Amino acid sequence: MKKLAIGIDIGGTNVSCGIVTNDGAIISKFSFPIKDFETIESFIVYLSEEIKKILEEYKATAKFTGIGIGAPNGNYYNGSIEYAPNLKWKGVIPLASMLSKETDLPVLLTNDANAAALGEMIYGNAKGVKDFIMVTLGTGLGSGFVANGELILGHDGFAGELGHTIFDPNGRSCNCGRKGCLETYSSASGIVRTVKEMLLNSDEASILRKISLDKLSSENIYKAALENDAVAIKAFDYTAYVLGIMLANAVAITSPKVIFLFGGLANAGDLLFKPVKTYFEEHLLALYKNKIELKPSGLPENDAAILGAAALVWNSKQ
Amino acid sequence: MKKLAIGIDIGGTNVSCGIVTNDGAIISKFSFPIKDFETIESFIVYLSEEIKKILEEYKATAKFTGIGIGAPNGNYYNGSIEYAPNLKWKGVIPLASMLSKETDLPVLLTNDANAAALGEMIYGNAKGVKDFIMVTLGTGLGSGFVANGELILGHDGFAGELGHTIFDPNGRSCNCGRKGCLETYSSASGIVRTVKEMLLNSDEASILRKISLDKLSSENIYKAALENDAVAIKAFDYTAYVLGIMLANAVAITSPKVIFLFGGLANAGDLLFKPVKTYFEEHLLALYKNKIELKPSGLPENDAAILGAAALVWNSKQ
Repeated sequence: MKKLAIGIDIGGTNVSCGIVTNDGAIISKFSFPIKDFETIESFIVYLSEEIKKILEEYKATAKFTGIGIGAPNGNYYNGSIEYAPNLKWKGVIPLASMLSKETDLPVLLTNDANAAALGEMIYGNAKGVKDFIMVTLGTGLGSGFVANGELILGHDGFAGELGHTIFDPNGRSCNCGRKGCLETYSSASGIVRTVKEMLLNSDEASILRKISLDKLSSENIYKAALENDAVAIKAFDYTAYVLGIMLANAVAITSPKVIFLFGGLANAGDLLFKPVKTYFEEHLLALYKNKIELKPSGLPENDAAILGAAALVWNSKQ
Repeated sequence: MKKLAIGIDIGGTNVSCGIVTNDGAIISKFSFPIKDFETIESFIVYLSEEIKKILEEYKATAKFTGIGIGAPNGNYYNGSIEYAPNLKWKGVIPLASMLSKETDLPVLLTNDANAAALGEMIYGNAKGVKDFIMVTLGTGLGSGFVANGELILGHDGFAGELGHTIFDPNGRSCNCGRKGCLETYSSASGIVRTVKEMLLNSDEASILRKISLDKLSSENIYKAALENDAVAIKAFDYTAYVLGIMLANAVAITSPKVIFLFGGLANAGDLLFKPVKTYFEEHLLALYKNKIELKPSGLPENDAAILGAAALVWNSKQ
């Protein structure tokens, strides 16, 4: 009887679920909006009914090993979502135990970027790599650190917040309430802030001036850069400068073999990777120079969150 | 028959050796200057003769489990010292295998701050703590990171260089050839630089003006601060500001339970710990606030390096 896991990604807008084999094939998937669920109890009722249908459907052909969940502010140790600013459910939500009770399956939970790191390790380009950093470049910047072959969870289960390391203590205001966090510079929202600053502080010609400020996005900056727009190219360069320095700092802590870049901005390819590599090497301590690979993630973007969540199950020693 | 280890600390000036029990008692110790040994071969001949005398002396009463060495730029994986700027022996020195061949004992080697972290874990205040950071504040700033109960060695054995994370990419020149490294601010030499800058850039009264610039040391700054000298106190405050921010950044990566401060500057007690705690908490991401202890090391300063080196032997799974 084949073994399967259920991977669930809880985002600020949608919940995505998939049935995943241990070699990373997604047999089926579905998603639904999260906004309909005012309370966690109503969410658990709905989700566990959906899962029970799946268990019933596969009961003759497969055994489910467990459920993995990637969620904002997910705490691996106690399976809770804790004070997630982007979710309606406030405080500490013991999601794993609630879902486990309803489904009779082991439920493991961690934050989305840590799940992505496990996904990279089990299904992606980090197979067999014992020391690596996974960086997810979305609206914000998430990260997961693997050392000695294990995800660094930290004392409280909240390790791996590279996006909130401070690049400039007097720098840009961050949603977290502090200033100068890496993700205010090097993320989809960060590059938009950089372009806005550049457009407002200079008269340099740019096709981006034709777009209203509230429509500016990392996608139009990317397209402008492909057309050699000077402002767009400088914005990628500055994004890469800050990211290169902060990755060099992270290397001085965990000394990884590979750093994987994943998500929207990473899809800009050489436009981002080339200058990141340059600034990264320039700011590395001599000991580490020319040793560390900077690679795109091997996870398919649309399914990465589900695969990462399922990877929690296959990574577990249970 | 009792089990013993030999702990060896190789510094830029002296080599210290001790015979250590597995509960951290140093039975005997000796040290000798390193400058007499122009070649690594002459050093190995001398050191292995000394070790053979020890083995002979104890042969009826104890069994030696191994030799642990803390050394600058020490690579745990291959037991080499690699391109250490403060030692005469250039290039890659396979010290562990050379010494093992002469003594017939297993020899383990890592850098001095990583050894100190293991020492803290096995003999000091980190017993039973699975996630912590050890920071050694000497002339420079060294560090060792423990996560999931294991020292983070990194892909190449060189993890844990917090002193060379960049606080300000346009900041103070560092011996490593780059700019703005943490250790140029927060270390014994860093606080001296801070005081020199303050004395040169202002006319503020200070008893430190009576000391010639080449005689200024962290010790006289400490004494001046105890006498409420405003410049000395501001220098401690700035040292703590930079350290507090960079420790907050390190927390966002490994999320430790405790951070231990060890060595010269840490002996300043509240003068350093109080402002570090303030700036640290101020710059922590909300998730981590009021969770992480900042503590002095539990290792006796004079013997810490030997204990740390010996801890390599007791930590080994061999």
